[in-house]
Amino acid sequence: MDQIAYVNGSFVPLSEAKVSVLDRGFLFADGIYEVAAVLDGKLIDNASHLARLERSVGEIALALPETIARIEEIQKELVKRNALINGMVYLEVTRGADKSRDFAFPKGVKPTLIMFTSVKNIVDAPSAKTGIDVITLPDIRWVRRDIKSVALLAQVLAKQAAAEAGAAEAWMIEDGKVTEGGSSSAFILTRDDVIVTRQNGSEILPGCTRKAVVKLAEEHQLRVEERAFSIDEALAAKEAFITSATVFVQAVVRIDGKKIADGKPGPMTNRLRQIYVDFAKATAT
Amino acid sequence: MDQIAYVNGSFVPLSEAKVSVLDRGFLFADGIYEVAAVLDGKLIDNASHLARLERSVGEIALALPETIARIEEIQKELVKRNALINGMVYLEVTRGADKSRDFAFPKGVKPTLIMFTSVKNIVDAPSAKTGIDVITLPDIRWVRRDIKSVALLAQVLAKQAAAEAGAAEAWMIEDGKVTEGGSSSAFILTRDDVIVTRQNGSEILPGCTRKAVVKLAEEHQLRVEERAFSIDEALAAKEAFITSATVFVQAVVRIDGKKIADGKPGPMTNRLRQIYVDFAKATAT
Repeated sequence: MDQIAYVNGSFVPLSEAKVSVLDRGFLFADGIYEVAAVLDGKLIDNASHLARLERSVGEIALALPETIARIEEIQKELVKRNALINGMVYLEVTRGADKSRDFAFPKGVKPTLIMFTSVKNIVDAPSAKTGIDVITLPDIRWVRRDIKSVALLAQVLAKQAAAEAGAAEAWMIEDGKVTEGGSSSAFILTRDDVIVTRQNGSEILPGCTRKAVVKLAEEHQLRVEERAFSIDEALAAKEAFITSATVFVQAVVRIDGKKIADGKPGPMTNRLRQIYVDFAKATAT
Repeated sequence: MDQIAYVNGSFVPLSEAKVSVLDRGFLFADGIYEVAAVLDGKLIDNASHLARLERSVGEIALALPETIARIEEIQKELVKRNALINGMVYLEVTRGADKSRDFAFPKGVKPTLIMFTSVKNIVDAPSAKTGIDVITLPDIRWVRRDIKSVALLAQVLAKQAAAEAGAAEAWMIEDGKVTEGGSSSAFILTRDDVIVTRQNGSEILPGCTRKAVVKLAEEHQLRVEERAFSIDEALAAKEAFITSATVFVQAVVRIDGKKIADGKPGPMTNRLRQIYVDFAKATAT
């Protein structure tokens, strides 16, 4: 059965969910997106995603076509219409369709808002048990990685390189330090049991799951340092892991083919994953 | 009357020219574009644009859904169907619509090819007589600016900043030197009559009009140097100008509000513009 998507005020079959070829999301990557996980039919950490959405659109002076409250209503309506149990809701807002194709912002054009869902069993994903391989490559992205824009071609190329190497993620390196993964935040657990992840700034996306995991770790009296780390440090670490809205917490067991510790998901990663799953279920809306 | 656009094999009214919300051009900026000018119903320097299209798609391992010969046929058919005299043909190819929304390349998905036209009197544009203002700002783009991708958000923000300052273009600065404009190549004419424009490399797009103008200048025994220049050098220059497919050659008369020479289009710029217009008309197809 065809899924239902949302396009500018209407719920339509996904196969009919279309935007104009003049849409600035399609012509200029002039748009922002968010992906929220769904567990048991409920949205995970969604307030955090919507807060980031507001921040991102603000950074590119794009006015949302609906209120945040209405956007959340639409997300929930879409979950319901698709009878979605486990998966995610993707949403994208762009600066709309404008005939002039001027680079500068068009006037009097209503932004585009689209959403669709997909099914994924995040909690029981096989890779959560086995861990994943990552590769490393230079971070070739633009300067404003803190904006969650759809200008994702660099990440596409990075994750394709990972896929070709049999890895699930690419860690991007700048000035000798890891920035983040193509679609996830990067963490290590040092030999002295400090959880390390890069501090927020324009160099990385402020990950919602990253933020929640840092907060939860601190609440559990775990030591967290927000600072950049190198691949050498990651290879010498006790554990490594990634976080994202659609993988939660997932162990990294090899970097560029080299094992981290014994090459298996470590106890801290498993513990943080469980803490995050518990948090997700407890706070789902 | 509604214009006619081309979408994946069909000629359709522009108002009905749509792509799936799952299109990777819309979700990931995973696409390449070209814009060719039209004069008197004929395409300008189109072989150069199509050669660059082939190069760009090759750099991101995107297979064209049609041959270059067929793409040119479609361009010409579109010009004819729209009875276009003066303006441009926009074309975009993306990695197609795929339900998975995986960053890595999908398998078995046909790329999207769309085209549309717009009307513009390039030869008699008022700004060609008056010249334009440019502003300067940091170049915050990704590393692979030689790929003509639709990941254009940095250029959108740059040209919006220019528009807000009453300028028509933004010159982007990196390591103290001009890379290029938001949608054009940057040139100066030095005090000793040398035409200077930055050498090709990953730092700039290899402009088709830039390339033609350099070649034409050399054929006219004018001195050309391909090297980076600073804003100080530009401000001390005899003339400055930009080139692009849709402005041809256009004088820059002020940079950040400061006049170049007497603040009027100079004789060399006007001469190169005329040489380019003559070349365009003589070689149009």
